[in-house]
Amino acid sequence: MFLDKLNWRYAAKKMDPAKPVPEDKVARIVEAVRMAPTSSGVQPFELFVIRNTALREAIRPVAWDQAQITDGSHLLVFAAWDNYTEARIDAVVEQMVAERGDSDMLQGYFANLKEMLLPRSAEVNHAHASHQAYIALGFALAAAAELGVDSTPMEGFDPDQVDEILDLKSKGLRSKVLLPLGTRAEEGDWLLPMPKVRKTKAALVTEVD
Amino acid sequence: MFLDKLNWRYAAKKMDPAKPVPEDKVARIVEAVRMAPTSSGVQPFELFVIRNTALREAIRPVAWDQAQITDGSHLLVFAAWDNYTEARIDAVVEQMVAERGDSDMLQGYFANLKEMLLPRSAEVNHAHASHQAYIALGFALAAAAELGVDSTPMEGFDPDQVDEILDLKSKGLRSKVLLPLGTRAEEGDWLLPMPKVRKTKAALVTEVD
Repeated sequence: MFLDKLNWRYAAKKMDPAKPVPEDKVARIVEAVRMAPTSSGVQPFELFVIRNTALREAIRPVAWDQAQITDGSHLLVFAAWDNYTEARIDAVVEQMVAERGDSDMLQGYFANLKEMLLPRSAEVNHAHASHQAYIALGFALAAAAELGVDSTPMEGFDPDQVDEILDLKSKGLRSKVLLPLGTRAEEGDWLLPMPKVRKTKAALVTEVD
Repeated sequence: MFLDKLNWRYAAKKMDPAKPVPEDKVARIVEAVRMAPTSSGVQPFELFVIRNTALREAIRPVAWDQAQITDGSHLLVFAAWDNYTEARIDAVVEQMVAERGDSDMLQGYFANLKEMLLPRSAEVNHAHASHQAYIALGFALAAAAELGVDSTPMEGFDPDQVDEILDLKSKGLRSKVLLPLGTRAEEGDWLLPMPKVRKTKAALVTEVD
């Protein structure tokens, strides 16, 4: 159960390179990302699953030298679309038509969506796409916790340099967040013995009955 | 299992007002939001749990008249901080010191964080806070699916009007996403019988071995 793992999970600071994450678990985490809901079902991001050691070694120095990038066994990179384009939305419509059948309702919905999205600035659209990538990040974190896989979300990196290393710009993508997957080291993690700190419900939640 | 519910969950378009979500399940969804990881553990958002019918009736017309807002039993509103401030970060530090003990490392970490965040524009900081709220949204969606609760994330609303209705501006908050909780109606939802459409793994995921 994901809900039983809320306290188990934490952002491991030290991962054990001798304990790689089994591929069947990685596949289930990737599947959670693929199934995550997004605005209008557009899925405006891509996921990179990096096992390659040289590539992870190249990313680590542009990510504050965080050791989990190479001590973990897999590095997930969430990269959001730099903008919404007609071609990108049309590809979504094409798949929906193929799988659900064509309808005036479907065509009308996406015609309206294009009217809303395409005149907006790339920055506004990229911000919107990024939000969807973060929903998928939440799903990846939940899936990893459920499977007993450690994962450490990281925003501390130079996105331009990661984009360069992964050649994202040419694909119309911008890296938003890194998620190394691995296994917590039994020793040497300052954070592991610490109590988890979260705001009280009273501080975070307002109930309006 | 959350991972067994990836196909079960969908954005219910029609909820049954006669089937409210049990409070113990709502409490578990709220707890998942509270425990969601955020950048530096700052939790830069607040969650509103609205049962009040009049309030949900007031929000519905400024949210494209989407019926789930009043046909569901609970409306979650995720509202991100409008900016990072010294007082807000200090409150986080204070709680961490109380629960983990004081240390030079902790004080140094948050001194650096303030040096990074406080000179940035409110827009940049609000965007960063919003990303964290979307991770928590992902946790809420995962928790709801695991518990067999229907939830329909909504960005289609007028945030200024929702901020006004909930008096968020005076609290330094901006509404980002709505999440009605309820129970799917057995009849009358055009989306329920449709196959779920998601990009293929090949279209969404790049593996670098």
